[in-house]
Amino acid sequence: MDKIELNILGCGSALPTTRHYPTSQVLNVRGNLFMIDAGEGAQQQYRRLGLKFSRLKQIFISHLHGDHCFGLFGLLSTLSLLGRTGDLVIHAYGEMEELLRPVMNKFCRDMHFKVIINPLSPWKNEMIYEDRTVKVSTIPLKHGIPTCGFLFEEKQKPAHIIREMIDFYNIPVKEISQIKEGADFITEEGEVVPNSRLTTPAKDRIKYAYCSDTAYSEKIVPIIEGVDLLFHEATFMQADLARAKQTFHSSAMQAAEIAKQACVKKLMIGHYSARYYDIKPLLEEARNIFPETIAAYEGLKINI
Amino acid sequence: MDKIELNILGCGSALPTTRHYPTSQVLNVRGNLFMIDAGEGAQQQYRRLGLKFSRLKQIFISHLHGDHCFGLFGLLSTLSLLGRTGDLVIHAYGEMEELLRPVMNKFCRDMHFKVIINPLSPWKNEMIYEDRTVKVSTIPLKHGIPTCGFLFEEKQKPAHIIREMIDFYNIPVKEISQIKEGADFITEEGEVVPNSRLTTPAKDRIKYAYCSDTAYSEKIVPIIEGVDLLFHEATFMQADLARAKQTFHSSAMQAAEIAKQACVKKLMIGHYSARYYDIKPLLEEARNIFPETIAAYEGLKINI
Repeated sequence: MDKIELNILGCGSALPTTRHYPTSQVLNVRGNLFMIDAGEGAQQQYRRLGLKFSRLKQIFISHLHGDHCFGLFGLLSTLSLLGRTGDLVIHAYGEMEELLRPVMNKFCRDMHFKVIINPLSPWKNEMIYEDRTVKVSTIPLKHGIPTCGFLFEEKQKPAHIIREMIDFYNIPVKEISQIKEGADFITEEGEVVPNSRLTTPAKDRIKYAYCSDTAYSEKIVPIIEGVDLLFHEATFMQADLARAKQTFHSSAMQAAEIAKQACVKKLMIGHYSARYYDIKPLLEEARNIFPETIAAYEGLKINI
Repeated sequence: MDKIELNILGCGSALPTTRHYPTSQVLNVRGNLFMIDAGEGAQQQYRRLGLKFSRLKQIFISHLHGDHCFGLFGLLSTLSLLGRTGDLVIHAYGEMEELLRPVMNKFCRDMHFKVIINPLSPWKNEMIYEDRTVKVSTIPLKHGIPTCGFLFEEKQKPAHIIREMIDFYNIPVKEISQIKEGADFITEEGEVVPNSRLTTPAKDRIKYAYCSDTAYSEKIVPIIEGVDLLFHEATFMQADLARAKQTFHSSAMQAAEIAKQACVKKLMIGHYSARYYDIKPLLEEARNIFPETIAAYEGLKINI
């Protein structure tokens, strides 16, 4: 599965409606699934989107508001019933430990896997996870309680070696991987063939930034600069900016402003307030500032 | 609103599926709403069924398995956001207190209503709630952990006085309510007119019994005898009886057997295992024993 795909499980805000689930997303990085936030009903949406529980690798929780984590209880219980044995890491603000443990000790006593909480410092931009293909770092956000977003960056892939050059210079198989990593080739006659003649560069690394919940904050711009997709909350219309400020949320216009400043390739808005039945006006408001904007909806799958 | 109406919010079991929500019901007793169990997603289903949060009066939790109570966290948070001020009583096994408080202290700090937990003794059949129109008592069930069902009984309504008799005997207005409650009437001449000549009896009291989760238990039969509607779990088919016994659940056939023995008017089955994609075979199995059986489904509203 050679893709990076974002799945929207829920894109509503604190008050779930009949139209929107609270926040949850799953980033599929070549078959490894990373859950970002887990609002109530996340496990059911996970099933609806046809995602495999056995593929769930790590969970990232932006902050400890109920609409971003109340789905953890049911999800962990389901993973336990399904017989999971592999450890599950939840990256979250440290207080998560004291909230989750009492419930788990009571309800998930027969669990055959360990839940490991990796306590985050939401105030720092630091790497919190990496594997062979991806690394994840925190994005400090501006909200009523400690909150951070997450930047997912694909790791640099090796360059492609040009088939014809292997034949032309009789390059031995054992040297190919070094050349892919950037080495020059020295012929038997001692001629140095520069790497740039032998390879074509790998495709650009894909980057996805998740920023929710947050008030307008230009501090995040350098961190998310140039990402392929930015999810930025747009809880309110600009007309309700007073309410947005009061609750440490952003307007659709502000989300677009951040996207523009950070020169991202695409913006996705979400985390809509329950007051908007139709989210088209939010989308239009953002597109006026940043045309490459799309609106999240439950069930959306998008290749980044 | 002169009715007693049952609303099915969820009728699945421990593993929610794309077809079924975990268990939750709302009994509407003349406009007062009583929630019975609150599995994950209960608040969203509550909205979908068009029920008013302001009408939610009491919550009854049968037992502390996640699929019967993980929806409480989000529901309480939503009631708080909606500005509820009136106390909310949750009838549940005492341990609920230690599970709910830490989460509420963290997530519902700005709450303007009190959550009062009424600790139940699930081993006794005792009255735990009454108001002007209804009384509720516990039904001890047989499950892996302390569990009880709930019997909702409409209170005896006053008899109807016969209009023509008021005119015939010139009955003064002030005596009418006593006669409705059963008093005889004494004319000015001292003649005793027996109550039975003056009134027609009120309609039968409506009774609803909720029994989930439970293994087959004939002990409940005397308590639920003759109810208008019995909800009895039917997690498994009779063919999977070994699994039912092991997990303290019932088969559809056993649910029907209990309904038959208790001479109930109607049986509703539910709490289906995720293994059954189609629940028709469960319904047929029950109907073979007890023809007046219906199958619960999400969104069902039924007048009792």
